[in-house]
Amino acid sequence: MINLIKMICKICKTNQAEIALKSHKIALCKNDYISWIEKRVEKTIKQFKMFSKQDKILVGVSGGKDSLVIFHILKKLGYDVKGVFIDLGIPFYSQKSKEKVIKCAQKEGADIKIIDVKDEFKYSVIEIAQRLKRPTCSVCGQIKRYMLNKIAQDFDVIVTGHNLDDEIATLFGNLLSWQVGYLQRQFPVLKEEQSLKRKVKPLIFLTEREISAYAFFEEIDYLIEKCPFSKGATSIFYKKIFNQIEQEMPGTKLRFLKLFLKNKKIFGKPQKIDLKPCKICGYLTTTEICSICRIKIKLGLINLE
Amino acid sequence: MINLIKMICKICKTNQAEIALKSHKIALCKNDYISWIEKRVEKTIKQFKMFSKQDKILVGVSGGKDSLVIFHILKKLGYDVKGVFIDLGIPFYSQKSKEKVIKCAQKEGADIKIIDVKDEFKYSVIEIAQRLKRPTCSVCGQIKRYMLNKIAQDFDVIVTGHNLDDEIATLFGNLLSWQVGYLQRQFPVLKEEQSLKRKVKPLIFLTEREISAYAFFEEIDYLIEKCPFSKGATSIFYKKIFNQIEQEMPGTKLRFLKLFLKNKKIFGKPQKIDLKPCKICGYLTTTEICSICRIKIKLGLINLE
Repeated sequence: MINLIKMICKICKTNQAEIALKSHKIALCKNDYISWIEKRVEKTIKQFKMFSKQDKILVGVSGGKDSLVIFHILKKLGYDVKGVFIDLGIPFYSQKSKEKVIKCAQKEGADIKIIDVKDEFKYSVIEIAQRLKRPTCSVCGQIKRYMLNKIAQDFDVIVTGHNLDDEIATLFGNLLSWQVGYLQRQFPVLKEEQSLKRKVKPLIFLTEREISAYAFFEEIDYLIEKCPFSKGATSIFYKKIFNQIEQEMPGTKLRFLKLFLKNKKIFGKPQKIDLKPCKICGYLTTTEICSICRIKIKLGLINLE
Repeated sequence: MINLIKMICKICKTNQAEIALKSHKIALCKNDYISWIEKRVEKTIKQFKMFSKQDKILVGVSGGKDSLVIFHILKKLGYDVKGVFIDLGIPFYSQKSKEKVIKCAQKEGADIKIIDVKDEFKYSVIEIAQRLKRPTCSVCGQIKRYMLNKIAQDFDVIVTGHNLDDEIATLFGNLLSWQVGYLQRQFPVLKEEQSLKRKVKPLIFLTEREISAYAFFEEIDYLIEKCPFSKGATSIFYKKIFNQIEQEMPGTKLRFLKLFLKNKKIFGKPQKIDLKPCKICGYLTTTEICSICRIKIKLGLINLE
């Protein structure tokens, strides 16, 4: 542990440091930490040409720290940003998440739309997964992507709260099983493709710890609890592993991701996927009828006759 | 933990199993385990065309489990194998290692030559590192490589005891820091190059645990203690990390290495290094005077005037 008691902020050289960042070899006071985080986010946005002040930005907010923090930072930096919360209908968890999102919207005076999976699919993601006899997380991911893409039609870009820990866990999993296709696609920006909007991850170079500290200093009230279905997920295990590595060798997470991005051309360009509109709903798909309409057919929400 | 009490050997289907291997989803009796390990080593030797029964094979034995096990297996499989032990002059450790090697040579009725770093360099590797003000492990590795190459002139191939855990630790380290050059070269066979003999690693697909169990069943008496200088080595930390991963997801180590070897062409071919004989000793080098002669000059063992 770094002893903060006698440390002064490395930026202002006046105030007592309130947070030490071993991986960056700095300790900062509250105000300078807040600006430092915001500058790093802005730098990432510009480095990867994610969006500009002219773009209409949609943030998918879940009620967790990452999405509420990026929503807050983008608003603070003066971007034209709106939020969307997707109520998945997960008992207790979705309700608590929604409360945090509503509170945040009120506090920020911000526009966060709330949409409900049940309005379109009649059932919660859990019920859908049960009826389809499929894993909940897989169905949930698919439906969230669909609903986010649908609501994003009036926007230029979709922002998600993926952080450094998320990206490292994905990268490590892809390397362990040498998923070359996924390695080709892993990038802070997923380009727009016909009706699918650009997707970007401005928090990709910030750790969970850095984001939590920012939320704490900025008094952003988020849901600490994780989705009950995420328990035992491989990604959580990989995150624990990399926290041990980071503890032993500070800076490894950031270096690992940055070096991967610098060298990822080694894996070749992502294969072009031939997307065409679904015959029923027009959503882009590789098959005749998209996976969402196939879900709706199975749920009896679409009658083909 | 797998309960072995009620398990019978998957191969002979008769004897009580004595070892369970989660990563291979099998449990085996002592005799079938021994043959299974030997077959896996022979398969690796053939798969990578490491050497044949006609080749003169030199094993670098350290007194640890890996090198004594590969020496034992190669002898048992009928290969023309001799050993060499390099006495590095590390207090206690080198002495104890040498005793194990001598005991093994006597038991196997085998030919293991003992050479001493001090005979050529006047000092132990520790003293050399101190005089050169360089890290001990770096000097030691360099001198071991040199002495092994030198004594290998009368052989066709050099065998080392690197195991799956060693290879995974190296691979992970190289991936974390994207050492493309090292990733290009990491392979079970390092081809011969002028006077440098081929170097091969037949234990590359066996874990430390599998090798220890084989040594136990075959009553190979090895030095369990590690070199005192290896304490705190990054490779040991990476091995611990991968033991946790293996525990959670059995088979990951083997899959990770095999998939890397299958896909490693992604990283491109190793760059050809332009080697020429050292002006003083003839050892292959990229410079005028090889690094070994430069050490000898600094130690006052070679007088340039």
